[in-house]
Amino acid sequence: MRFIFSATRLWSIAIGVCAILLGANCIAAEPNIMEVTTALNSSWVVITGVLVFLMQAGFALVESGMARAKNSVNVIMKNYMDVCVCSVIFWALGYGLMFGVNNSGWFGESHFFPSDLAGWDWTFIFFQMMFAATATTIASGAMAERIHFHAYLIGACIIAGLIYPVFGSWVWGSAHGGNGWLKEMGFIDFAGSTVVHSIGGWVALAGIIVLGPRLGRFSAAGESRAIPGHNLSMVALGGFILWFGWFGFNAGSTLAANIDIGKIALNTHLAACTGALGYMLTAKLCKQPVLLTGTVNGSLGGLVGITAGCATMDPQFALLTGFIAGIITYIAPKFIASFKIDDVVDAVSVHGFCGAWGTLAAGIFFAGDLFSLERFSIQGLGVLVAFAWGFGVALPCYFLIDKIIGIRASTLHEQRGLDFTEHAELGYPEFQDTRALNADALHSQR
Amino acid sequence: MRFIFSATRLWSIAIGVCAILLGANCIAAEPNIMEVTTALNSSWVVITGVLVFLMQAGFALVESGMARAKNSVNVIMKNYMDVCVCSVIFWALGYGLMFGVNNSGWFGESHFFPSDLAGWDWTFIFFQMMFAATATTIASGAMAERIHFHAYLIGACIIAGLIYPVFGSWVWGSAHGGNGWLKEMGFIDFAGSTVVHSIGGWVALAGIIVLGPRLGRFSAAGESRAIPGHNLSMVALGGFILWFGWFGFNAGSTLAANIDIGKIALNTHLAACTGALGYMLTAKLCKQPVLLTGTVNGSLGGLVGITAGCATMDPQFALLTGFIAGIITYIAPKFIASFKIDDVVDAVSVHGFCGAWGTLAAGIFFAGDLFSLERFSIQGLGVLVAFAWGFGVALPCYFLIDKIIGIRASTLHEQRGLDFTEHAELGYPEFQDTRALNADALHSQR
Amino acid sequence: MRFIFSATRLWSIAIGVCAILLGANCIAAEPNIMEVTTALNSSWVVITGVLVFLMQAGFALVESGMARAKNSVNVIMKNYMDVCVCSVIFWALGYGLMFGVNNSGWFGESHFFPSDLAGWDWTFIFFQMMFAATATTIASGAMAERIHFHAYLIGACIIAGLIYPVFGSWVWGSAHGGNGWLKEMGFIDFAGSTVVHSIGGWVALAGIIVLGPRLGRFSAAGESRAIPGHNLSMVALGGFILWFGWFGFNAGSTLAANIDIGKIALNTHLAACTGALGYMLTAKLCKQPVLLTGTVNGSLGGLVGITAGCATMDPQFALLTGFIAGIITYIAPKFIASFKIDDVVDAVSVHGFCGAWGTLAAGIFFAGDLFSLERFSIQGLGVLVAFAWGFGVALPCYFLIDKIIGIRASTLHEQRGLDFTEHAELGYPEFQDTRALNADALHSQR
Repeated sequence: MRFIFSATRLWSIAIGVCAILLGANCIAAEPNIMEVTTALNSSWVVITGVLVFLMQAGFALVESGMARAKNSVNVIMKNYMDVCVCSVIFWALGYGLMFGVNNSGWFGESHFFPSDLAGWDWTFIFFQMMFAATATTIASGAMAERIHFHAYLIGACIIAGLIYPVFGSWVWGSAHGGNGWLKEMGFIDFAGSTVVHSIGGWVALAGIIVLGPRLGRFSAAGESRAIPGHNLSMVALGGFILWFGWFGFNAGSTLAANIDIGKIALNTHLAACTGALGYMLTAKLCKQPVLLTGTVNGSLGGLVGITAGCATMDPQFALLTGFIAGIITYIAPKFIASFKIDDVVDAVSVHGFCGAWGTLAAGIFFAGDLFSLERFSIQGLGVLVAFAWGFGVALPCYFLIDKIIGIRASTLHEQRGLDFTEHAELGYPEFQDTRALNADALHSQR
Repeated sequence: MRFIFSATRLWSIAIGVCAILLGANCIAAEPNIMEVTTALNSSWVVITGVLVFLMQAGFALVESGMARAKNSVNVIMKNYMDVCVCSVIFWALGYGLMFGVNNSGWFGESHFFPSDLAGWDWTFIFFQMMFAATATTIASGAMAERIHFHAYLIGACIIAGLIYPVFGSWVWGSAHGGNGWLKEMGFIDFAGSTVVHSIGGWVALAGIIVLGPRLGRFSAAGESRAIPGHNLSMVALGGFILWFGWFGFNAGSTLAANIDIGKIALNTHLAACTGALGYMLTAKLCKQPVLLTGTVNGSLGGLVGITAGCATMDPQFALLTGFIAGIITYIAPKFIASFKIDDVVDAVSVHGFCGAWGTLAAGIFFAGDLFSLERFSIQGLGVLVAFAWGFGVALPCYFLIDKIIGIRASTLHEQRGLDFTEHAELGYPEFQDTRALNADALHSQR
Repeated sequence: MRFIFSATRLWSIAIGVCAILLGANCIAAEPNIMEVTTALNSSWVVITGVLVFLMQAGFALVESGMARAKNSVNVIMKNYMDVCVCSVIFWALGYGLMFGVNNSGWFGESHFFPSDLAGWDWTFIFFQMMFAATATTIASGAMAERIHFHAYLIGACIIAGLIYPVFGSWVWGSAHGGNGWLKEMGFIDFAGSTVVHSIGGWVALAGIIVLGPRLGRFSAAGESRAIPGHNLSMVALGGFILWFGWFGFNAGSTLAANIDIGKIALNTHLAACTGALGYMLTAKLCKQPVLLTGTVNGSLGGLVGITAGCATMDPQFALLTGFIAGIITYIAPKFIASFKIDDVVDAVSVHGFCGAWGTLAAGIFFAGDLFSLERFSIQGLGVLVAFAWGFGVALPCYFLIDKIIGIRASTLHEQRGLDFTEHAELGYPEFQDTRALNADALHSQR
């Protein structure tokens, strides 16, 4: 009996051990799922951050292609250097201001010069750094063909180290404790129609007001005279690359791979398509030619417009949001030019105005709960605050830069082109007319 | 005894409960794995769809670079707008026709204007939309330099809303119930050598027959006279970008991240390499110069060729499939030109002929079961059906477009270039000779 | 009693079966996690390999843009064909030499012409093939504008089939058994500062020594005379694309998606930024203009420099590593030119010197254990061995190529440009001055 009991118990114990081992095996799998999920999210955020990086190339091509050949090197150099300067600044200051512990709701106070964070934090900084570079570079195109290279870089530092991260902390902060005040109010800006694009656009507006228009952009009688860009193939390629990178911008803003990223990518794409269509149909209605530059800007306007609401909108409203943004890219440049303000690439219209529209649209077309006055008001408040902060801080900054080191190239330099005068290099030395330049001076400097 | 029995039973019950709890724990993990898998598959399909999107930039560069500068804006505008127009059309009509409930085996009947689908469906639509845009844009290069912009866009709508999705439903339908008739027969076309590329190529053939050759492409005596493209750097960049995007095209067609995507990517790459080598060696054997344009087309031919069989072929056969496709890209353009048909970028050869070859190759080099007459016959049937449908529907469509609104630009416009006459913009205003144009007319329209 | 025993046993057996079934369920889940992990790693390695592929386009643009228009087709053709040739060679020979069973520590002896491997191996080959293509293509830019196309391709075969894979086997081998001798010593080269970039740079050095400088690159008096590149927009775009692809190069070298890839991407990015800044500040200090070409090379130097240590360095040291690499890209070209060696794109400086620096830096700034003399010595040994092998094998190879088929184009061909003489095609026929060429000869060859 005792033996029997023991045997039974042994059986039972054996089964118990077996079950526990199997269970332990099973429990050990749980953290594995966490690890796999973290690895998956890391790979998603890194690869989408990499796509956002390539948007820098898109900006460089669009902006340089819309400028004249004599300034092509200068325009591209501004794009190439601002990502370099502002990434370092964002690592040093911007990240802490935007995502550091935010007790007041107005700015972060920790995580400057980060050097010993955990794995996921590095992924997050990498992704956010690409966003900061995007916000910074938006202003460059508007101010092309007449701004001093150094003055531009100082401005870029101010955007990346102050204007962008502080506003960002209000909406997206914080990653390390505390909340931004606009975020607390329920302001919706999923991937940055306002935080990135409108801020960039309003800073650009301040810059071009301080700079003044290019020589010959407005006639003595005040008539607007288009200055054609030197390479429209580059403009179109830049448009495609921006569009490509925007999938990372919007679908990566989930900060996690999940089942919703397909809808975000689809909304992003449809809005870009209807942005171009909105521009084209408006131009047709106004009996004007359908320009390549306008078409590219139309699609970019659609992309800016969908950025705030891409995760909370159904596709039919993404189509509509993009379409209206496309119409805005036709009308707004004429409105801006009517003030004799010269925006070389229409950055204020595409990023500023379409960003504002997109932020409102995110409130109006909220999936499952269309239009609520409260949500609309909060969205409107965010739009206004962005303008007040972005334009209000940038204007005195550019004004000071102008007073201290001078922001605008001399008339002679503007006529010769900034490539020669600021970089001693020509974009296309075999195709450009170099008779006006002192070729010896150009090449002897090497 | 009874006590002992009970004690033993208690032990056993305790173990059982324990085991069940552990098991439950284990079962609770199951849906997590499903979620992670869905998230992983979503991220894979979205990112590969994004790569396929960038192929539009590749097409734009290859086609524009092979055209003359005076038509560069027009060519790129066709590429830029057709993705916009056809994405919206595909959302409205094409997706339902191709993937909706397919009771007859001949077309889908549901899911038009989709607005309330689940997460994965949006991912699927996004990916398929990029394929529809690819199929549509193939025709544009062939018809470059002489087609009216509006006539082209109407043709693009017909491809994206009718020709492509209906044929696609036969091979790939349906996602929502029912099966396409060619799919039922066992027709193999993994990523679309036939569904996307041959269809695009045969539509292009119909278009250029209706259009007729460019002025000066064939001499009065009937001799073929090459018209050199204006920017071969762009052609090569476009080739690289297409190759890059093709990895998304083929490896994304798994619609899931799995262990096989590496082999698919490798096959894709090797076939592109041997495509270029096949062209080069054939040109050398014929004692002809190895052209950059031919080399790029050779690699594209290899890519088209491997698209059908990339998932079911071993690498040594991928090498062979690409090599033969490369030879085809040397021979087929001469065959086409012998009929005085003018294909600006050899789209019919690269997409139509190499697509047909690749579809046959997928049947011949089927891993683990080389050559079966039955499989070969079904592949051959699919190839013929694609030609009959693609060419057979497109020819009357383009003929009707020509009769109703006129498909071909006037001789004067073709001579001046479509950039000036259709878009009032020049691709390179500082480098192009504008003496023949009325510059005032050009710029006053802004 | 016996009945009771049986009943108890039955109970126990039932529980056991239950536990085992649940356990089996649980065990069945285990492979699912393994499958998901494999699928995730496959997707990560494939997509990063695809990014590395696009670096070919970056190299083509940088190298062609820095050459003159008359050689633009030739430069791009070298890039386009070397990836084709060397991918096939790497499949046939290189992979086996580098990753096959390595009993001696000096080269692999198996896995030539691989045709029946398992899923993951194909992914691995695909990724490594892209690295081989990168190592091969580095030399092309240095030797631009005067090397015969066929001589170049033979050299590319030797790099991809011998020089690169044998050295690679010392550091990274083997995937199938055995260890490389440098790997055994603890040599650190995470993603290939030495294995890929220095090897490519030292091969380039050998090539340009055998080739000699371009006509006019050094005056009769021995003065260095810069020959400006024809398209700096392309150079900048190429720089952006290389930077973009480098994220795949470095973060993909984990061969697995994991939590560390964000830090690797961040380090990669920061080093590129400070590389450009290091160049710019050095140029400013030397009162020289900040050239676009120099800025792009500065960032590429930073990228080369961080490649060895990107996974084992903290961000503040990545900033420093890149900065010093940027300074090197300013100084080293002047050092090379002082020997009257003509490196068209400064590939020896950017890839050779910065690669050597980066390999040392990986030893100096090792996270958690800064500077150890032993580690530094091993890194130094690896750097020297790479030079001895890369330069030592390439020099006699190029010398033999020169003796047997002639490596340098004739003076007449060099003056006319290799596009016309070797490919019978012009890069920009509408913009280039073709009076010196026999236009009929050019086009009648089609």
